[in-house]
Order: sequence, then C-alpha cells, then structure tokens
Amino acid sequence: MIIDCHGHFTTAPDAHAAWTVGSPYPRISDSALQASVEGQLRLMRERGVDLTLFSPRASAMGHHLGDETRSTAWTRACNDLIHRVVRLYPDRFAGVGQLPQSPGAPIAGSVRELRRCVKELGFVGCNLNPDPSGGHWTSPPLTDHYWYPLYEALQELDVPAMVHVSAVTNPNFHATGSHYLNADTTAFMQLLPAGLFQDFPGLRFVIPHGGGAVPYHWGRFRGLADMLGRPPLAESVMRNVFFDTCVYHQAGITLLFDVIDVDNILFGSEMIGAVRGVDPHTGHHFDDTRRYVDALPLSDADRLKVYELNARRVYPRLP
Amino acid sequence: MIIDCHGHFTTAPDAHAAWTVGSPYPRISDSALQASVEGQLRLMRERGVDLTLFSPRASAMGHHLGDETRSTAWTRACNDLIHRVVRLYPDRFAGVGQLPQSPGAPIAGSVRELRRCVKELGFVGCNLNPDPSGGHWTSPPLTDHYWYPLYEALQELDVPAMVHVSAVTNPNFHATGSHYLNADTTAFMQLLPAGLFQDFPGLRFVIPHGGGAVPYHWGRFRGLADMLGRPPLAESVMRNVFFDTCVYHQAGITLLFDVIDVDNILFGSEMIGAVRGVDPHTGHHFDDTRRYVDALPLSDADRLKVYELNARRVYPRLP
Repeated sequence: MIIDCHGHFTTAPDAHAAWTVGSPYPRISDSALQASVEGQLRLMRERGVDLTLFSPRASAMGHHLGDETRSTAWTRACNDLIHRVVRLYPDRFAGVGQLPQSPGAPIAGSVRELRRCVKELGFVGCNLNPDPSGGHWTSPPLTDHYWYPLYEALQELDVPAMVHVSAVTNPNFHATGSHYLNADTTAFMQLLPAGLFQDFPGLRFVIPHGGGAVPYHWGRFRGLADMLGRPPLAESVMRNVFFDTCVYHQAGITLLFDVIDVDNILFGSEMIGAVRGVDPHTGHHFDDTRRYVDALPLSDADRLKVYELNARRVYPRLP
Repeated sequence: MIIDCHGHFTTAPDAHAAWTVGSPYPRISDSALQASVEGQLRLMRERGVDLTLFSPRASAMGHHLGDETRSTAWTRACNDLIHRVVRLYPDRFAGVGQLPQSPGAPIAGSVRELRRCVKELGFVGCNLNPDPSGGHWTSPPLTDHYWYPLYEALQELDVPAMVHVSAVTNPNFHATGSHYLNADTTAFMQLLPAGLFQDFPGLRFVIPHGGGAVPYHWGRFRGLADMLGRPPLAESVMRNVFFDTCVYHQAGITLLFDVIDVDNILFGSEMIGAVRGVDPHTGHHFDDTRRYVDALPLSDADRLKVYELNARRVYPRLP
C-alpha cells in the first residue's frame, strides 16, 4: 500500500474558493465535489498511490487575511469540505486540517479546531503555519511557550503537525519557490537548539518539501548542533521530526535517502500542487515522486517503511 | 592554483570589533593584524588554498544597526581593514567589500563605496545584502529598480556581487542555520521570473552556501520556470548566477555537481566561518570543502574551472 502524506485540495469547486466569509456558504453538491477530485483520483490511480492525506489548499489558508473570526470561519469551511471528500472516498483520502491561525491571535482557537477535526471529523493530523503573517515572520518561534497548548493537544490526541506556510504578501518571497522552502529550513533550525521535545516527547512534526534546505546542508546542521553543544541530530531532533519526499528530481531524492534515516522519510508528492508540468528531461511529471523513490536501491523492508509504515507510525489514527 | 571565493575576516582584532562608530578608530598595528589572520593562513596552507577572496565578517555587517551614517562609517572601517590585510598578503588575499546598506536608505551610498572599493582599494567584488533589515525583509526584491544604480556600477566596473545577508534580530531565524540559506533561496527565486539580466547582461551574482536550497530542489525550480513561462534556467538565470561549494558534507557537494553545470560552480569554503568543528564521520573539518570536491570524479579541465578559472571569469579583476 502506498500512502501519500502530502496532498492539498487545490482543485476545490470554484464556489468554495470564491466564498466570502460573512455571506451564506454556497451549496456544493456531492456530484460537484466528486467532479472536483476526479483529476486527483485519476493521478493517484496512474501513479499507484492508494491513500492521500488530504488537507485544504495551503496557499489559500490565508492566515494573514482579516482577523481571527474570519480565519475561524474560513478554516471550518475548508476542513468541512475536506471531511465531505473523505466521506465520499474513505478508502482514498484521510483528512488533515488547517488551523484558524491569525497574527497575534491566541492559540486557543487552533486548539479548539484541532480537537473538532480529530474528534468530530476523524482527521489524522493538521497543518501548522509557523508564519501566519504571510512572509513577515511576526509570530514567536515554534519553541516559544505560545504554542505549548497546541502541542499538549497534539500529543494528547496523538496526531502530528505538518509545518506548512501559506501565501505571502511580502514581495521578497515567492510562495512555492522560496517561502515554503524557507519555512521548512527555518522550522528545523528552530527545533535544533531547543529542548522542545524534552517537554513534549510525543510531539511529531512533518517538515515537507523534503525538509527544505536541510538534507542538502546536513553537514552544516550536524556541525551547528555540535557548535551549539547539542546531542547528535538523531537524538535531539530526529525522534520527532520527519521529512516527506516532495523533491522533484532524482538527484534530490537520492541525496535525501543518502543522509536521512529511512525511518524519518514519508512518501509525499504534494500532487496536485506547486509544480504541475512535465520534466522534459524525463518525460514524466516533476511531482510524480514515486518514480524517484522507486528508482532507489531500497530493500523491500525500507520501501515498505517509506510508502506505508512510517506514515502509520507518524499518523497512528490512519484507518 | 586554488582560489577560495568565500572567506570572511571573522578573526579581526578585538579592537576593531569593539569599536563604536563616533569614537576614534583604534590603532591596530601590522603585527596585530598579522597575528589575527595567522589561523586563516595556516588553514589555507593546510588545505592547499592559494588565494582567498576576503571580505568583512558577514554577521557583523549589521546593516540593521543605527542609520546610514553609522553603516557608512562602519563599512569604511571594515573595508579599510580588509585592504590592509590584502596589502600585507597580496599573494594570499584579494579584497571583497561590504556595502553601507541601511533599511530605507538610498542605494547611492552603496554605489559610492563600491567605486571606492574597486578604484581605490583594488577590490574585486562586493557582498550585497538583500535584507539589510536583519530578518524582517523590508527592502524591495533584487529585481526592483531601487537596486539598478548599483547594478549599473557593478556592470561598468566588471565586478560581481555575492548575495549575503548579515545578522538577524528576528527571533524566528538563526543567522547561519536558516537566515543565510533562506536568503540564498529567496534571491535565486527573485531572479527566476524577472528579466533583470536582459537589462544587465553583464551583471553577475554569486549565491553562496551552495545556492541555499536551490540545487537540492533543482527539479522544482526547473518546473517553476516552466510554469512561469520562462526559458530554461540555463538561459534565463545561469548565465549570470554562480554557486559556491560551501556545502559541508560529501553528499551535498555530489548533488551540487550532479545538477549544476560545472561552469557555474566556484570553489568556496567560508572558512573560518559558521561551522568550525570536526565531522566525527570523517575526522576532518566540516568546512574543509576541498576534500569533498577532490573526491568527485571530475576531469582535470573541470577541476581547474572550479578551483580557478571560473573565479577568474566571474571576478576578472583578480590579479
């Protein structure tokens, strides 16, 4: 079985995407919803992916827009829509929620929505935005006590958080070309010096897009851990942090598996996502990451971990 | 001959580092200056590096501190000290200047200092900070016309700029662990969609730290170029952009050379810099990057490019 830990509902019906908080939420029929995921399901079939951990469109989380009230209403609508998709295709999708973050807002609202997602909607995880300001980085780092109530809930519910930013308003950054990758690298480095996982030994983060710049600079991070007087990364961070395989070429995936323990890698593609074209070098879609993983000389046991068992360990609420 | 394109004067005499703009600049004797670079010269000898492109300590550029007047005085002092080191060891160092950037300040002051560095001090390039705010990213992107007078001067003087940020005050970022790498990735992505190099065909940027996250995500960037309707990266960006080899483990260097054309790679180590320890996996310093390059199966012609000829092409004012 192949589980893709990283899929966003980027093809949601127009009526949902165009909805303005405050106006009546549009009626979206089951058939309209089915039509909107048809492309996703077709690509999953073509690529042999059995189950996708499906969350609302990341770039549309828009935590920087409006205030907490707006973010809460929008988030509930997005998560409810994911819930409907999962109910329509329970064998193909598992739900992952977004949180009603808003710059400067207390974290309590996110804790409430996380509990609703897990307890009422049956979701298996959430996406956590380390920069709800949209590229201005005004929130406290992930190790700050501000986040602790959320971590308590994540640990209690036994669900992980994928660290994932949203759209940017800062013209220095391109959402999918730099902001996403920077956030991944930033989050990892925040977790390196602090003892957050001593406070929350059961807390688990998935850092997407192959860990940002981290595996490519693995020597730098090992060296920085050493200079900061931290234990080796395997002990201090990598019991609680996992990377996906959203790296869109063979050399990158090869490096990822070369330096990161196979127990810390979850298969993911972020399909249908940031990069939708066909690589002229290979004739296949850039984001068809299964091809890169399949091309690795992994043992059957390791392949099983990356495709299924690691996801089940990190997301124990998976069916 | 081996040229290291990326060295900062991180061991400058204490009197210089402790100097406060406005007070009299301390007298630093030649012998004190010689003593302060002794470690650098020893490591260069041990590693077989003949010439280092030497610039002021990056983390101490501190463009976010004070105002333009402070930045100008500090920058001149830093560049003058580099000039003295180069005069003491003209066969071992070539000068690279910092610029008197300051958030919101006009770029004219940086143009003036660049001209002074090249014309009066004989420097061969400069470091350009895309985020003088220190981690708040308040300046316009590198493609903005704000920067154009500097690019005109760089092109006219035929010197490149290394894109290099300084210290951070934003607690989300760690200077050498995330801010540096993020800035590299951010700069590359800024250059990808725009036609900056159509306006300045002779402009050259060195993106340090192995290009940040870029080579690891080379497929993503190729795919984004395609989605943005841009020509292949080789045509749109890589005639003007170069990466150094400041990647502190073998797998990273292997990937760099696997995906980036050898004509775009300049040997660099950032020694003595961010990571000073010994890798327990190899028994050698993390930042002894020559070992990683030497271990690659490069032809003699390609090795010569990486170690010397590319640097001479990108920095034509090298002696």
